[in-house]
Amino acid sequence: MESTASAPRADGRRTDEIRPVTFQRGFTKYAEGSVLIAMGDTKVLCTASVTPGVPAFLRGQGEGWVTAEYGLLPRSTGTRCDREAARGKQSGRTQEIQRLIGRSLRAAVDRKRLGEWTIQIDCDVLQADGGTRCASITGAWVALRDAVDGMLEKGQIESDPIIAQVSAVSVGVVDGHPVLDLNYVEDSACGTDMNVVMTAAGGFVEIQGTAEGAPFTDEELTELIRLAKKGNAELARLQSEALGR
Amino acid sequence: MESTASAPRADGRRTDEIRPVTFQRGFTKYAEGSVLIAMGDTKVLCTASVTPGVPAFLRGQGEGWVTAEYGLLPRSTGTRCDREAARGKQSGRTQEIQRLIGRSLRAAVDRKRLGEWTIQIDCDVLQADGGTRCASITGAWVALRDAVDGMLEKGQIESDPIIAQVSAVSVGVVDGHPVLDLNYVEDSACGTDMNVVMTAAGGFVEIQGTAEGAPFTDEELTELIRLAKKGNAELARLQSEALGR
Amino acid sequence: MESTASAPRADGRRTDEIRPVTFQRGFTKYAEGSVLIAMGDTKVLCTASVTPGVPAFLRGQGEGWVTAEYGLLPRSTGTRCDREAARGKQSGRTQEIQRLIGRSLRAAVDRKRLGEWTIQIDCDVLQADGGTRCASITGAWVALRDAVDGMLEKGQIESDPIIAQVSAVSVGVVDGHPVLDLNYVEDSACGTDMNVVMTAAGGFVEIQGTAEGAPFTDEELTELIRLAKKGNAELARLQSEALGR
Amino acid sequence: MESTASAPRADGRRTDEIRPVTFQRGFTKYAEGSVLIAMGDTKVLCTASVTPGVPAFLRGQGEGWVTAEYGLLPRSTGTRCDREAARGKQSGRTQEIQRLIGRSLRAAVDRKRLGEWTIQIDCDVLQADGGTRCASITGAWVALRDAVDGMLEKGQIESDPIIAQVSAVSVGVVDGHPVLDLNYVEDSACGTDMNVVMTAAGGFVEIQGTAEGAPFTDEELTELIRLAKKGNAELARLQSEALGR
Amino acid sequence: MESTASAPRADGRRTDEIRPVTFQRGFTKYAEGSVLIAMGDTKVLCTASVTPGVPAFLRGQGEGWVTAEYGLLPRSTGTRCDREAARGKQSGRTQEIQRLIGRSLRAAVDRKRLGEWTIQIDCDVLQADGGTRCASITGAWVALRDAVDGMLEKGQIESDPIIAQVSAVSVGVVDGHPVLDLNYVEDSACGTDMNVVMTAAGGFVEIQGTAEGAPFTDEELTELIRLAKKGNAELARLQSEALGR
Amino acid sequence: MESTASAPRADGRRTDEIRPVTFQRGFTKYAEGSVLIAMGDTKVLCTASVTPGVPAFLRGQGEGWVTAEYGLLPRSTGTRCDREAARGKQSGRTQEIQRLIGRSLRAAVDRKRLGEWTIQIDCDVLQADGGTRCASITGAWVALRDAVDGMLEKGQIESDPIIAQVSAVSVGVVDGHPVLDLNYVEDSACGTDMNVVMTAAGGFVEIQGTAEGAPFTDEELTELIRLAKKGNAELARLQSEALGR
Repeated sequence: MESTASAPRADGRRTDEIRPVTFQRGFTKYAEGSVLIAMGDTKVLCTASVTPGVPAFLRGQGEGWVTAEYGLLPRSTGTRCDREAARGKQSGRTQEIQRLIGRSLRAAVDRKRLGEWTIQIDCDVLQADGGTRCASITGAWVALRDAVDGMLEKGQIESDPIIAQVSAVSVGVVDGHPVLDLNYVEDSACGTDMNVVMTAAGGFVEIQGTAEGAPFTDEELTELIRLAKKGNAELARLQSEALGR
Repeated sequence: MESTASAPRADGRRTDEIRPVTFQRGFTKYAEGSVLIAMGDTKVLCTASVTPGVPAFLRGQGEGWVTAEYGLLPRSTGTRCDREAARGKQSGRTQEIQRLIGRSLRAAVDRKRLGEWTIQIDCDVLQADGGTRCASITGAWVALRDAVDGMLEKGQIESDPIIAQVSAVSVGVVDGHPVLDLNYVEDSACGTDMNVVMTAAGGFVEIQGTAEGAPFTDEELTELIRLAKKGNAELARLQSEALGR
Repeated sequence: MESTASAPRADGRRTDEIRPVTFQRGFTKYAEGSVLIAMGDTKVLCTASVTPGVPAFLRGQGEGWVTAEYGLLPRSTGTRCDREAARGKQSGRTQEIQRLIGRSLRAAVDRKRLGEWTIQIDCDVLQADGGTRCASITGAWVALRDAVDGMLEKGQIESDPIIAQVSAVSVGVVDGHPVLDLNYVEDSACGTDMNVVMTAAGGFVEIQGTAEGAPFTDEELTELIRLAKKGNAELARLQSEALGR
Repeated sequence: MESTASAPRADGRRTDEIRPVTFQRGFTKYAEGSVLIAMGDTKVLCTASVTPGVPAFLRGQGEGWVTAEYGLLPRSTGTRCDREAARGKQSGRTQEIQRLIGRSLRAAVDRKRLGEWTIQIDCDVLQADGGTRCASITGAWVALRDAVDGMLEKGQIESDPIIAQVSAVSVGVVDGHPVLDLNYVEDSACGTDMNVVMTAAGGFVEIQGTAEGAPFTDEELTELIRLAKKGNAELARLQSEALGR
Repeated sequence: MESTASAPRADGRRTDEIRPVTFQRGFTKYAEGSVLIAMGDTKVLCTASVTPGVPAFLRGQGEGWVTAEYGLLPRSTGTRCDREAARGKQSGRTQEIQRLIGRSLRAAVDRKRLGEWTIQIDCDVLQADGGTRCASITGAWVALRDAVDGMLEKGQIESDPIIAQVSAVSVGVVDGHPVLDLNYVEDSACGTDMNVVMTAAGGFVEIQGTAEGAPFTDEELTELIRLAKKGNAELARLQSEALGR
Repeated sequence: MESTASAPRADGRRTDEIRPVTFQRGFTKYAEGSVLIAMGDTKVLCTASVTPGVPAFLRGQGEGWVTAEYGLLPRSTGTRCDREAARGKQSGRTQEIQRLIGRSLRAAVDRKRLGEWTIQIDCDVLQADGGTRCASITGAWVALRDAVDGMLEKGQIESDPIIAQVSAVSVGVVDGHPVLDLNYVEDSACGTDMNVVMTAAGGFVEIQGTAEGAPFTDEELTELIRLAKKGNAELARLQSEALGR
């Protein structure tokens, strides 16, 4: 493995540099939390909807629930993809992603403290340029934070159930070089692709790494993890900034 | 029927006044036409996707095809609605609306002149405050115009297949008063609700009127049609403005 | 627009003449109301089924419910159409029609007075020759009347919840001539097709007009409405006759 | 087992007597064969639709195909049953019945002689009073005969592919007595229920017997088979009469 | 019909000889009854799962429920068949078979004595070589017996609800010769195929016979029934042996 | 983190010890590769089915395809789980797992060298005691090897397309101790669960780690990776042994 520092990227970024990130809070007016996250050209509308009560399997246990759904608008992608509602089912990819988002956000919440409320996260991709699942998690956490702050203000809950700040970033091996925050072109070309969900405190919530071509080595794994930590640390800072904290 | 001019509206509009309308062209980067229309607080992303070829039932006839799909983002509404992709089917309402949008846009196009190309319209509601199907049609026509202009520029087609400029507006009887362009609160309260799709030349493409409560009279019908003509004339002017024509 | 009076029709009817209509009450033995309506060669079996209770969304409000389903027998049409049960879903057209039938029949009923009963309308087309949705509404109202009379006789309800007599007829512009009650050949050829649901008292319940080809004009709209009123007035008279009133 | 001759039946029939049967040919106008069979109060519309070509699995083998679908109109029954198209799938019972009808009709046809044509049988129950699957088969054979006669007349096929005349009847053990052609009340009460499909020449095409309560004995089996032969012989005679042969 | 005794079979069996049968009880560790039945090369895993309570339609009547599901592993067959879970629905054949298994097992149980418990039978074919539905029934009865014995031991029920010992075997006419227990090659070639479910006491629970080619005669029916009785008597003996009774 | 060596496990294993593993090749007779893998009490039937041709999206590119499906028999688990075929869809979990299996096996194959053949892997869990997805991958690779050896023998392909030996093992943090190859009880109790797919040469094919409770640390990650390497090395050795290599 050569030094990653010298690897050139099509968009001029350094190998350890994330794309410009913005959070537009209150993007829509009804949701308790509503954030449009842009991570480069990837744009995801993340909403958090608060409703009293929990699904049947949790009823009467004094715990809350956090769950997520994910969708691509049909023309969020270069070539139009089928509308899943019209096809009559969600793809395996969609289900995999929304299960990941749900687990990641649940890791941010003490469900006992939340009490019998459900927070439904929706991540809808308006424009896809790689890393949509990571942008979804990072944006959804801000929407969740806003929704929970609203619950605290309204007195729906008494103490803050958010126990961790969560973000996610992709890393990958492109042309033999580990790089941070892949865009679509890099993602398509990459040999190894890894999504890393972390807390602001530096803990790992989820690691999903896949060798698309050749298997990856111990050294690559180590470097990918290092890049992911760096990326998530920056994302955590940007989340806090966006929230004015 | 009293004079509609004196009827007060919650948002201060006159009975024959449409909400502020804006068109944001090029809202996303991949679609051949991509327009975010805002009609008051109703916001719909309308994209037009161009692909060579036509569905099987039209193949070999030298004609093109224009079709539409419609969706509500789950939290575009006051109370979260189910994601249709997760439920596994589109509601009757969704199908009714997307069939209406498709018919309306096909009325704008000479399909012989389009030749064997398909233009797929997608209308995705980001925020719903009444009149989403009308806003979809009005916005989609602008996206269609942009997409077709692109085809002409690229030489994919030789002559302009667009034969009409199409827009749509809702009218209704609220508290006994015919009014133009209902928002959600008015729509929920209205006795009669009518969607009117017209060409800029003043022809009717589609009229769908429903008495939710008491049947409506000849006089009300006449006044509703008058309001719809006024509204559509303004929308046609705003569409042209947005296109810089 | 030329005078419609002089327009010849393939089956020899005047432009303002409906097809022969018959109602066969008690066509099947189980349903509380069961009417086979024939409108020319269009034949629809309309049943009204009475059951105690209402759907969940209405429970405990002291109101009743009227809803409708519609289907084409596979070989009711010139070319066999797929059985929707076998395909596993109802088409958009079917859903659109059954929603229209349901709304139209609900306009005939004071649901408070009905109390917590559900009346399920089923309209099954045995033979289709144009105007099936209108024939369904016109026949279903007679089945509804029979079913409600049965409820009154059995003492299930105390006062008559039927507040309007409802019928429907199609009108259209065929070869430039507005005509009343289109058969299949005319429907296929027509430029504009409009379904008009009215009360016997002359109120409008629903208007659905579509320009299949060129948009229609104010004058055509006016004439179509005039024809629809004439047609519905005759249908109302025939409904009453069939009921012996 | 007592003598079956003395067993009284609610509708006064002898134990070995079928209900009155009528065939109304040409009941609808489009289908190549269209027969309304009434077997007592059970009424089934049987249509045979002829189309050129065969399903993919048979293509190029010079053989034809005969297949069947079956449905109950929602209020063909005492209590309204769900519309399968609305539920989104056919029940196991429906599939079982339509598979039986298809097999039975295929037994009537030399598919080589039919050549690459498909005959689609549709059996739609307008009113159900027991024995709907048997009435479907008996009526469908007449519709098939009419459709094939039409093919011969039009010169679509050269020699008659029908090699057997097929009918079906139910038999059962009611209160310990074997009886012929059960109506709904008897069917609900019976201990053993058997459907027997036969050719006019006395061959067995299908036997489906089920003990709902106690298992049945050799003697009962023998008597049920005897009754079924008698019933099918009468049905074959009535089919021929209806066809004027 | 020639003497069946002299007919040669590809695997050397006499016409009235069943394949070697083994029952492997306790094949898996969780199910209350778990039996791998091998009938020649046909291998079916039959489990019986016991749960308290009954489906809604039986609740409060003091009766239990026995039901069955059936599946083929995708490569249990010579050519891989689609996974029904992936296709999104069970075939008509699957439903027909599982309904047959359910009815057959319910004939073995006094549901009043079972009380409000549900026993769910699952028959999953690991390898298919003809007669899978019969092997399923024969194996499932042993699993049911084991499950019920467990309930008696645990005191979940007081008296034995099993009132009959049930097995099933296929018979058919192959090359004009009635034979017992068809394997896949014989089943594919056979003119008539019949599945016969019986009790150890010699009563008939279900007979399903189908003429695939020419109809079958009275004499063939008589001989098929004789063979089925012989086969089921042997299966009953082998079931008892396997249970150590 | 304490020393993992001293952590006691319920079944007496050391923290770095896998369960007993057996491979039963040729478990069923039709599939080109058929392996029953047992990993402790987890038992999965893995078959590889070879068919000429590839799916539409790959046609004409001279490449082969390897894909996988996964299922749990309904009573493979402690409490019966729904049959997915009956429910009408595969769960998100099932889809996630079968996508993982497919990706992992594709990493073992040079698809150019395979040419236009499809190898379909089916992993059906007969008994589940934790680690079913890892056992599926490990067993499926042996079935794949057998299937490909058959292709080479039959001359269907000329050179061996298998470029890597692939196995998978789970690791997790249980009560604060990283352990290797979790059984169901450990899996349910564990804070972090990670599935690691590797090649026999020591490369990583896939890492999927999830913190169910508290996030995991760098040190835990390092130790989990170390255990996974050890486990996969042993599995590779056992695979080779089973294949007699």
